[in-house]
Amino acid sequence: MSSALLSYEEAAQTIADHAAALRQMQPAVERVPLAQAAGRVLARPIVADRDQPPFARSTRDGFACRASEASAHRPLAIAGAAKAGDAPGGRLPPDAAWEIMTGAPVPEGADAVMMVEHVETGGGVGPGMVRLPPPRRLVAGENVVARGAQGRSGDELLGSGVRIQAGQIALAASCGYAQLDVFVRPRVAILSTGDEIVPVEAEPGPGQIRNSNGAMLAALVAAAGGEPLLLPQVADTDAALDAAIAQARAADLIVFTGGVSAGKFDLVEPALARAGARFHFTGVRIQPGKPTVLAEIPPAPVSSPVRGQSAAKHCMGLPGNPVSSAVTFLLFAAPLLAALSGSRETVPRFAMAQLAGEVKTKPGLTRFLPAVCSFGAKGELPRVSLVSWQGSGDLTALARSNCYLVVPETATVLETGTSVRILLS
Amino acid sequence: MSSALLSYEEAAQTIADHAAALRQMQPAVERVPLAQAAGRVLARPIVADRDQPPFARSTRDGFACRASEASAHRPLAIAGAAKAGDAPGGRLPPDAAWEIMTGAPVPEGADAVMMVEHVETGGGVGPGMVRLPPPRRLVAGENVVARGAQGRSGDELLGSGVRIQAGQIALAASCGYAQLDVFVRPRVAILSTGDEIVPVEAEPGPGQIRNSNGAMLAALVAAAGGEPLLLPQVADTDAALDAAIAQARAADLIVFTGGVSAGKFDLVEPALARAGARFHFTGVRIQPGKPTVLAEIPPAPVSSPVRGQSAAKHCMGLPGNPVSSAVTFLLFAAPLLAALSGSRETVPRFAMAQLAGEVKTKPGLTRFLPAVCSFGAKGELPRVSLVSWQGSGDLTALARSNCYLVVPETATVLETGTSVRILLS
Repeated sequence: MSSALLSYEEAAQTIADHAAALRQMQPAVERVPLAQAAGRVLARPIVADRDQPPFARSTRDGFACRASEASAHRPLAIAGAAKAGDAPGGRLPPDAAWEIMTGAPVPEGADAVMMVEHVETGGGVGPGMVRLPPPRRLVAGENVVARGAQGRSGDELLGSGVRIQAGQIALAASCGYAQLDVFVRPRVAILSTGDEIVPVEAEPGPGQIRNSNGAMLAALVAAAGGEPLLLPQVADTDAALDAAIAQARAADLIVFTGGVSAGKFDLVEPALARAGARFHFTGVRIQPGKPTVLAEIPPAPVSSPVRGQSAAKHCMGLPGNPVSSAVTFLLFAAPLLAALSGSRETVPRFAMAQLAGEVKTKPGLTRFLPAVCSFGAKGELPRVSLVSWQGSGDLTALARSNCYLVVPETATVLETGTSVRILLS
Repeated sequence: MSSALLSYEEAAQTIADHAAALRQMQPAVERVPLAQAAGRVLARPIVADRDQPPFARSTRDGFACRASEASAHRPLAIAGAAKAGDAPGGRLPPDAAWEIMTGAPVPEGADAVMMVEHVETGGGVGPGMVRLPPPRRLVAGENVVARGAQGRSGDELLGSGVRIQAGQIALAASCGYAQLDVFVRPRVAILSTGDEIVPVEAEPGPGQIRNSNGAMLAALVAAAGGEPLLLPQVADTDAALDAAIAQARAADLIVFTGGVSAGKFDLVEPALARAGARFHFTGVRIQPGKPTVLAEIPPAPVSSPVRGQSAAKHCMGLPGNPVSSAVTFLLFAAPLLAALSGSRETVPRFAMAQLAGEVKTKPGLTRFLPAVCSFGAKGELPRVSLVSWQGSGDLTALARSNCYLVVPETATVLETGTSVRILLS
């Protein structure tokens, strides 16, 4: 338990290995209306119920034609018209064109669409005629999407394990899915420890603070696609912790906050040890969040195993300082939660931004510091700058940030203007 | 209506100007439980109900002391102990230290905390004594957060207009807010036009497709903090459009999809004109999404004005192709929606990533192409690559993407490995 600290990369790799193992166990499946599927994880592939598109489709308003005839600049007779929603017309006669709107079916025999903005009609060409004037030419396939170009009937268009957002909902709708099969959300037990903690609605006495971590972690769990189980606050006694762990065992993941430092009253590791835990790490060379713990406890002794009780269960011990709790949840708990959700997405998410001001630092820890990224309104490059903060208890700084600046373990200075990594929150 | 196309930057600036004007009108306010506040926009500042932290607080397990005495390496008498949750103790006697746990109040007179890992106790120092061995020294303030360092009682810790996520919930909880005042969600009417469109649960006939844009836009509106009003699909007739606009006028923002190209049956602009619209743009030099329309219609003639009916109302006409609809919603409708939500956040959000493969392009349009970003798992830089796609109708490509690669209007090639902008979705 007092083993050497892992680097951030080592801890992240450990988490990734455990997430990969968790992904082998498929979660239960439930069916939800398409309008309620956002944020859930697709449990069955989306399959095309017909060719996509179901007919050769014009992408422009104009005239369907044979590209070879149009490119010869001959006047072509307008043989018919099709707007979106019309059934496909008959075969296009030779030396003819077919007036067509965006989204309408291209008649058989036509292989391209001249854009309405590019043609001559009426006066100069003759009544009922259309011509593509030189030097413009047209190639076969231009402004047409062939039937089945995006997928054939029966094709798997999207595999399971994808987080469902607007684009996935649109694809499902196009294939006729009014409901979707999604994985059941994993339940995450949240255990706030510490005798100094009082409920949000209470008036704290001298030396006490309100429980901000419980509500924060519940929001983080929900945002990551889990179902938070906010258990009552746990007193700093062995008996209280043992009882809390017994209660939390029904969840799919157990997250402690507080009680994991080196102090006399940091009772979480001993309690986990009493529950039979195997410890995978008990500290990481990061700031904030150094005392973070990853452990697994064996299944509770039950007569008839139910879902989530037949396998060892992951427990994350997060430091009690709120910024530490938030960062370590994103770095280490969220990837496990994604795996338990059946999701194949990359968690946590990093991006890059330009550093707005020099950052000096001491090597030895990978740092994840509350920061504000402009996210690049109105054409500027996204720029990131640190939020001034008073250490990992500073909730004001956390609430004023919208990402974390990543400072590599070996860095001593990050120069203004360099490209840096940010942890997206 | 057939005015010159705007550049992307010009259109984004026009949208930003309108968003700034909308921000002058404060939305209505409602009160929600803290646990349901995620995703909402803070309507009143969060004010500290006491100093933050409420007492000088140790950030380490160790011994509170006077830095000057500790740095003289004298043995100090252990005068007491404090764990988190204890009321602040009495005044620290001279040449003494106070055993202290992380989060506990530092006794009056102490100005620093020696870390437990750094001190000698017991045998070599004497019973009940503690010493900081040379050459280590301590400075005043070390491992202590002073009372009020993060904010004084009555301070505004966070202003209104902030989107509430986990960090903001934690700050509110720490200040005793069991409920939060948030802005009422803006209602967004979604009007899908086009005779080729059938409902998701219907079997499309020849030439027909299912309405994927309605469900997609409802999900985009909800993700952007609005309340979607998914109105019945609108037929391609003037009368149907006029009736739909009359119905949609009760919403705070009206979003059309389809019917904005140059075709014979693109009836949205004429219908808006009949409703008295002022057009701010009717086309943007982007791909996909060129025919996007921004307009404002005057208030409906009502005897007693109600909320949302007393001011001109913004209407966005989005192209009917699904990828076009998704991109133009993010670029242009989402910033208006953020402003109507009372939010001060930057919308849309861009970040940077490394381009995984060369992209060749033709100048003249700013492109927003469906792409996959690795978001940088396990220490690599975030890398982005294009999803293969068959044009702006390709829902499969959209569903397989997790961002959009931004290709500047003047670019002819983007080299592998360069830092590029991505539009976060």
